[in-house]
Amino acid sequence: MSTRRAPARPPRGRRPAGVDTRADIVAAARTAFAEAGYQATSMRHIARRAGVDPSLVHHYFDGKAALFAEIVQIRVDPAVVVQAIVDGDPDRVGERAVRSFFEVWDSAEQRPLFAALLRSALADEHAARTLREFLAEEVFGRIVLQMRPAGASAPTQLSAAEAQRAGLAAAQMSGMALMRYIIALPALADAPAEELIPPLAHTMQRYLVSEGDEEYISSDDE
Amino acid sequence: MSTRRAPARPPRGRRPAGVDTRADIVAAARTAFAEAGYQATSMRHIARRAGVDPSLVHHYFDGKAALFAEIVQIRVDPAVVVQAIVDGDPDRVGERAVRSFFEVWDSAEQRPLFAALLRSALADEHAARTLREFLAEEVFGRIVLQMRPAGASAPTQLSAAEAQRAGLAAAQMSGMALMRYIIALPALADAPAEELIPPLAHTMQRYLVSEGDEEYISSDDE
Repeated sequence: MSTRRAPARPPRGRRPAGVDTRADIVAAARTAFAEAGYQATSMRHIARRAGVDPSLVHHYFDGKAALFAEIVQIRVDPAVVVQAIVDGDPDRVGERAVRSFFEVWDSAEQRPLFAALLRSALADEHAARTLREFLAEEVFGRIVLQMRPAGASAPTQLSAAEAQRAGLAAAQMSGMALMRYIIALPALADAPAEELIPPLAHTMQRYLVSEGDEEYISSDDE
Repeated sequence: MSTRRAPARPPRGRRPAGVDTRADIVAAARTAFAEAGYQATSMRHIARRAGVDPSLVHHYFDGKAALFAEIVQIRVDPAVVVQAIVDGDPDRVGERAVRSFFEVWDSAEQRPLFAALLRSALADEHAARTLREFLAEEVFGRIVLQMRPAGASAPTQLSAAEAQRAGLAAAQMSGMALMRYIIALPALADAPAEELIPPLAHTMQRYLVSEGDEEYISSDDE
């Protein structure tokens, strides 16, 4: 799940690689993305801010998208968030998922990063893949898997119907992010989260937790 | 609802203004946007393609966003689509809304234009406003208004709760557009529309048609 590579001998850089070099790069990238957005931030810019040679940034990270994903993952560890969503009353999984969403997006600190991720995913195929995999594999797919009814086969891989339900959940919440925070539809942008949580929680509960029969999805799995 | 201006005397251009000049500009813009996307298409480019002076394009249209909105409106007249959605069995308004969505987005001819509109709305505040107003006023707000329960006050303006429901509907469908057609989440991108229609129709029915009590939305309207 982590995009970290095993520590390896770094190439020659402007300064010797210490144990904190990687952390310094991540910290520099976090600030750079938040200030300038995804598109305008280059690996070279991040290197300069971290005070390291650009080759060192490329040594630790496959590219800008990988570095960005790392930052998102560091700030909001999806495994921890998902666990908090699936633990507890199974009838309130939808509500907990929606509350987690608003905690991230209504946070002045985290919103710019997630907004940059969403914008970049529309402009850049690498970022689109990052977001796609993040949402499908780390977030909604994982919740659907964990919420399989007792007696179902052990959670390993999603069925086609389960993957569709995870996709519907991703569509509902990414659309809310788009309309509330980026397009800024007044009725959503101006509403307190507490007013939006109940109807969204209802929808997300239906998408994330099977009612056992998958009645509304064709059963042609696979 | 139309962005057309009254015909007026055009400024001097490379050729005399005929009755078809405006239509020629619209046709040229349609092709240019579809081929090059919103961002890469300039007013000058459209003028060259239409064989007119750029000043003539600016005479008829306030800017690129206005021209783009005009094209979207010409191809998919929201008033006609909304009427077809609200007419008929009120319990299937959600389903008709979702089917209309897939008719537009699964059309090879129309999808590029709507995808360009969505992309541009993330990059450009003019385009964001166009999309915002289009979705809130012409599409979902209008459906919610028309579906007011009998006996409610005559349809004129949305209450805060109604505007929120329209916004939730816009969020669900724009998120589906984002995830199925732009981010291309495999579970959604690869699914036949018929498999996605039932769960989406269920959600949209709840958002678009009040159950009379607005039970899940705070009643602090206004």
